[in-house]
Amino acid sequence: MRYVSYKTTSGHVTWGVEEGGTLFDLGPSGRQVADTLRDAIVGDLLSATPDYADAPSQAEEGTEFVPVVGGSPKVICIGVNYRSHKEETGRADVEFPTVFSRFSDTLWPHGADVTIPAESEKYDYEGEVALVIGKPAFKVSREDAFDHVAGYAVFNDFSARDWQRHTGQWIPGKNFPESGTFGPYYVPASDIGDIEALEITTRVNGEVRQQATLADLIFDIPAQIEYVTTFTKLEPGDIIVTGTPGGVGLFMDPPTFLQDGDLVEVEVTGLGTLKNRMVKG
Amino acid sequence: MRYVSYKTTSGHVTWGVEEGGTLFDLGPSGRQVADTLRDAIVGDLLSATPDYADAPSQAEEGTEFVPVVGGSPKVICIGVNYRSHKEETGRADVEFPTVFSRFSDTLWPHGADVTIPAESEKYDYEGEVALVIGKPAFKVSREDAFDHVAGYAVFNDFSARDWQRHTGQWIPGKNFPESGTFGPYYVPASDIGDIEALEITTRVNGEVRQQATLADLIFDIPAQIEYVTTFTKLEPGDIIVTGTPGGVGLFMDPPTFLQDGDLVEVEVTGLGTLKNRMVKG
Repeated sequence: MRYVSYKTTSGHVTWGVEEGGTLFDLGPSGRQVADTLRDAIVGDLLSATPDYADAPSQAEEGTEFVPVVGGSPKVICIGVNYRSHKEETGRADVEFPTVFSRFSDTLWPHGADVTIPAESEKYDYEGEVALVIGKPAFKVSREDAFDHVAGYAVFNDFSARDWQRHTGQWIPGKNFPESGTFGPYYVPASDIGDIEALEITTRVNGEVRQQATLADLIFDIPAQIEYVTTFTKLEPGDIIVTGTPGGVGLFMDPPTFLQDGDLVEVEVTGLGTLKNRMVKG
Repeated sequence: MRYVSYKTTSGHVTWGVEEGGTLFDLGPSGRQVADTLRDAIVGDLLSATPDYADAPSQAEEGTEFVPVVGGSPKVICIGVNYRSHKEETGRADVEFPTVFSRFSDTLWPHGADVTIPAESEKYDYEGEVALVIGKPAFKVSREDAFDHVAGYAVFNDFSARDWQRHTGQWIPGKNFPESGTFGPYYVPASDIGDIEALEITTRVNGEVRQQATLADLIFDIPAQIEYVTTFTKLEPGDIIVTGTPGGVGLFMDPPTFLQDGDLVEVEVTGLGTLKNRMVKG
């Protein structure tokens, strides 16, 4: 089952089920299962699909989306976490995951224009899979890690490479407004088979730039959860953005950054295609 | 005027004024000016001191504090920002402030024990001054920066040096539970004269380890606000932790880390003394 967060044709922010190009409203303006998709995940209301057949519905086409899961106090990102990306960066092998974070106000919808900040000359994409936590997670072993994952969605971790490299710390380059696009669909973990078989493909104006399966992760999802929950407690609705494959614009020859009008698409097997048009700010 | 956040003798979390060793309750269990000190700052209710003379009161001594301003989605920290600290780290001159962040669930009270994580062998103090934002701040110039500062409090940015250095990114070493102690007092900016004249003194078991005035900052407060608000919007109640002077345990000869039973005090002119006892986890 695929869930969405969106605005109804009458302008209400809601959420629901997507099936066959139709959105069924389970939110405040529809079946009132929960106020938001995030609340439904936090309240564990999706282990059985809510009855949606008679819910108010609209065509997906033309719908304005909102970030598929918003308002999470912890949006944790894992850097340099695909072998192909580590190789292009020239970085040495590492013993621990590279962890940075986003403020949740950077989350931005599928389908929306993304502003290239006026202050950045080196704006870049990073196609990724994000997971959403479903159960409180602190000091979780890798054996138990998947018990704490509620589901998955596509993420684009837009990065201002110049600001990312102002100092050794990446926070400024990873937190410009509109820089974390997230969606279109949220899929419960129970609907995903072998997570390592999922393939990420990132395209810019139709040209494939990144392509890898999650089998290429250096620190797999259980390793990420074990490491992160050693130092911080994750709550339902928190997000881990699991890393990006090789092929970012920064390491093209010559480096090639996003331009006004570029269409960036991140497609992940079973999770749909996250599309954003770039607009120079 | 000095404001506090604390528990009443009957166990209610509240906030109020400290004067002469007595706490006057302006919160839900007292004068009901606002639910929390953070709400009072966000609502701009402290530009004139609320009438407190007849509020329910208790002695400060023996009171259990809570983090003086809690629940802020953005707790932004500036690293390597005193000349004396930069020199001891051996780092080169930098063109931009070093920015990292804390999750707000790391905030912890004055007077409370602080757990040294079982997973860290290199736990260290960093005495700092934190500022609290009073007005929305985005793309703020240094000339206007102080207009957006509501007030100040003492902060101890406890750091797991081993986890801080697992990779190039500092987030794991800066986000263990209980690692951001904050208080005891919040002082409105209007009650602080020359901010650069404030002196930070950090003591461990009475021994002075850090001592500097804010005149020693590399990036002063206006420069911090100008830089940070270029990439992210700050809202009232958000926090910037402005940096720590030289003298951290990591750069002592030999390096000397915090031990079970150590008493760490950070004193700042006019802002009081933040005291925490270390407990090995």
